[in-house]
Amino acid sequence: MKGFGSSMVKVAILGYGTVGSGVVEVINTNGAAINKRAGQDIEIKYVLDLKDFPGDPIQSKIVHDINIILDDPEVNVVVEVMGGIEPAYTFVKEALARGKSVCTSNKALVAKHGAELLEIAKKNNLNFMFEASVGGGIPIIRPLNQSLTADEITQITGILNGTTNYMLTEMSRKGVKFDEALRDAQEKGYAERNPEADIEGYDACRKIAILTSLAFGSQVDFEDIYTEGITKITDTDFKYADKMGYAIKLLATSHKVDDVVYAMTAPFMISESHPLYSVNGVLNGIYINGNVLGDVMFFGAGAGKLPTASAVVSDIVDCAKHMGKNVMTVWSSTKLELGDISDFKRKFFVRVSGTVNDKLTEVKNAFGNVDVVMVDGLDNEFGFVTEVMSEKAFADAESKVEGVLNRIRIEG
Amino acid sequence: MKGFGSSMVKVAILGYGTVGSGVVEVINTNGAAINKRAGQDIEIKYVLDLKDFPGDPIQSKIVHDINIILDDPEVNVVVEVMGGIEPAYTFVKEALARGKSVCTSNKALVAKHGAELLEIAKKNNLNFMFEASVGGGIPIIRPLNQSLTADEITQITGILNGTTNYMLTEMSRKGVKFDEALRDAQEKGYAERNPEADIEGYDACRKIAILTSLAFGSQVDFEDIYTEGITKITDTDFKYADKMGYAIKLLATSHKVDDVVYAMTAPFMISESHPLYSVNGVLNGIYINGNVLGDVMFFGAGAGKLPTASAVVSDIVDCAKHMGKNVMTVWSSTKLELGDISDFKRKFFVRVSGTVNDKLTEVKNAFGNVDVVMVDGLDNEFGFVTEVMSEKAFADAESKVEGVLNRIRIEG
Repeated sequence: MKGFGSSMVKVAILGYGTVGSGVVEVINTNGAAINKRAGQDIEIKYVLDLKDFPGDPIQSKIVHDINIILDDPEVNVVVEVMGGIEPAYTFVKEALARGKSVCTSNKALVAKHGAELLEIAKKNNLNFMFEASVGGGIPIIRPLNQSLTADEITQITGILNGTTNYMLTEMSRKGVKFDEALRDAQEKGYAERNPEADIEGYDACRKIAILTSLAFGSQVDFEDIYTEGITKITDTDFKYADKMGYAIKLLATSHKVDDVVYAMTAPFMISESHPLYSVNGVLNGIYINGNVLGDVMFFGAGAGKLPTASAVVSDIVDCAKHMGKNVMTVWSSTKLELGDISDFKRKFFVRVSGTVNDKLTEVKNAFGNVDVVMVDGLDNEFGFVTEVMSEKAFADAESKVEGVLNRIRIEG
Repeated sequence: MKGFGSSMVKVAILGYGTVGSGVVEVINTNGAAINKRAGQDIEIKYVLDLKDFPGDPIQSKIVHDINIILDDPEVNVVVEVMGGIEPAYTFVKEALARGKSVCTSNKALVAKHGAELLEIAKKNNLNFMFEASVGGGIPIIRPLNQSLTADEITQITGILNGTTNYMLTEMSRKGVKFDEALRDAQEKGYAERNPEADIEGYDACRKIAILTSLAFGSQVDFEDIYTEGITKITDTDFKYADKMGYAIKLLATSHKVDDVVYAMTAPFMISESHPLYSVNGVLNGIYINGNVLGDVMFFGAGAGKLPTASAVVSDIVDCAKHMGKNVMTVWSSTKLELGDISDFKRKFFVRVSGTVNDKLTEVKNAFGNVDVVMVDGLDNEFGFVTEVMSEKAFADAESKVEGVLNRIRIEG
């Protein structure tokens, strides 16, 4: 059992970008307290990066060749904060094969290969930890894995992407259009120049895949999760939401109903009584329901250099406390077949062009009973809320009505 | 290392009251999932209680003599859910001495003897766990101990008592008086017939003592924490709070300022921007600030049979996963000397009898600049908010003004 009983944890960090430099900063800032909690000293031995950082104190630890790290038996924890699948996957797999525990913030890697990497870690009495892959600094992976162990989880619903939550909050508060909110988020550094992963919901989708896999103990493939981004949400939608007292949030959610798990990432309208209603700006929030626990909610900074690095370093500490002993995580590679969301039932909000006088009969013929919502100043369109209906029944009804402008799901 | 590698965890439950019967119910309901997460089967072997429970399936496991449990080498986890210091303390100490890990929901025991019992557990390669002692079902002990390890904690503020939060919420929503809110809470089973521990703040005080000890790694004696209950809060205070857009909450809080920790339990006015503002009814919420993490918040059911039992069972699972290996908890018996709250600075809300015309000069002479708050219909009193001042300066000023009706601290 490599490293067991040693009084020093030697860490190699793969990638000196935002999170990597944050990890260095956290260890430099809080080193004494961290070492006390780890029960031993944590030392950064290498930082792998393609670039050099002349003038930065880290320069003396920079290496460009992964093999220097893999070949060094003193390194017992590898921190992967490069992002992306390759070469991260190859490096992590090789590190585990060589007897090094791994901590990562890489949601894409964890969503795709988590089950396999956990299995390899277990076989080798090592650990593969990924607290920072979901919810930034919010403790969620470890609580789900180690605290909510007495419950059958019935629902996980999260605001898991800070960029889109910032944009939706700005659209709600200031009435700005989608493009302006996106530009603002890019200027503030919250959104990438290519914002696709955020605004199309891909990022949140990978995160709910990870949480759902952990909650139910089996592999959920993110490709199977119905995912819809926020690109169709307009400033007009927010006028209706305001009128109804709703917020519009990009939710990543999984429900277990009659032993079937349904998962989805999409924008939803939620009322003031929903636990995630007041999670605004770049904050993330995760709401969980357990069959004996009831509701719990976690919220905090879902991204950012230091909060994310704080979560990575908490994983390093946990690795240090569990040298030579695998911390069991129930996430088998057996695929969890998700339920068909066509069957999932809820209310929907719909906007149609035309006037209530001209159009309501057509709408009712298609959707049955609806509650009409009118907004002052919008004369040639109106909104309505359906009764509870399945996705499939909704799609059928929608196809029968001309001039549907938008539709947003409503979460209870 | 007793029990290491065994495929069965045999549990003895001390006390078949609300929480004890909840633990049995949770294990019966979710046994399969729990055993999977524990990696072995969890079986209840004994339940210690003074009474018999004829007709209850538990009867076959009831014993009246603690020695049957202590003498049985098969029992490797003891669950203490009796409450109170004695005989709980003697039983727990003896169980640890005999090689049994202990899980408890007993905040009084943990606050008073936590450091010592953790030390004994560590020496014997056992575990002493107490997730259920604070925040009921909300995971807070394990996250604080194992997830927030990269941070210097700068603040913990919690709504840690569901009974008083229910009462304050009712007073706020319905305008009822204190006595009526208390009677209602008693009728609903939220408050005991003798409600002193809740309404005087003693319960919340013990809980913040535990959280503060864990956050800073040293023993905080609950007797040292300034504690003020909610008995002086009146329906009139809520009229002013409403006017100002504040909630009134019983907060248990500790702040670290310039390396000194200040702790206090008292009613506070908090604004809508405070993370605990919307924690209503019997819910609990815990807000933590870390120097690199920023803000995180946890909330959920802070009490109740099944949520509390869920937390106890999560501890049993953790004990099962760590048989023969102590999970390090940094809480030394070295006493943490708390700062003198006389020095702590904040704003205060004050009500005085008399009219603004007659009285404001006297108030300003004592307090300096203040913001006056008037409520319609209250003609012979008014309120004011002070500038930021120390507790000591406040007390001095208060002693110079006649007719002070009440004063409530304001949390930023």
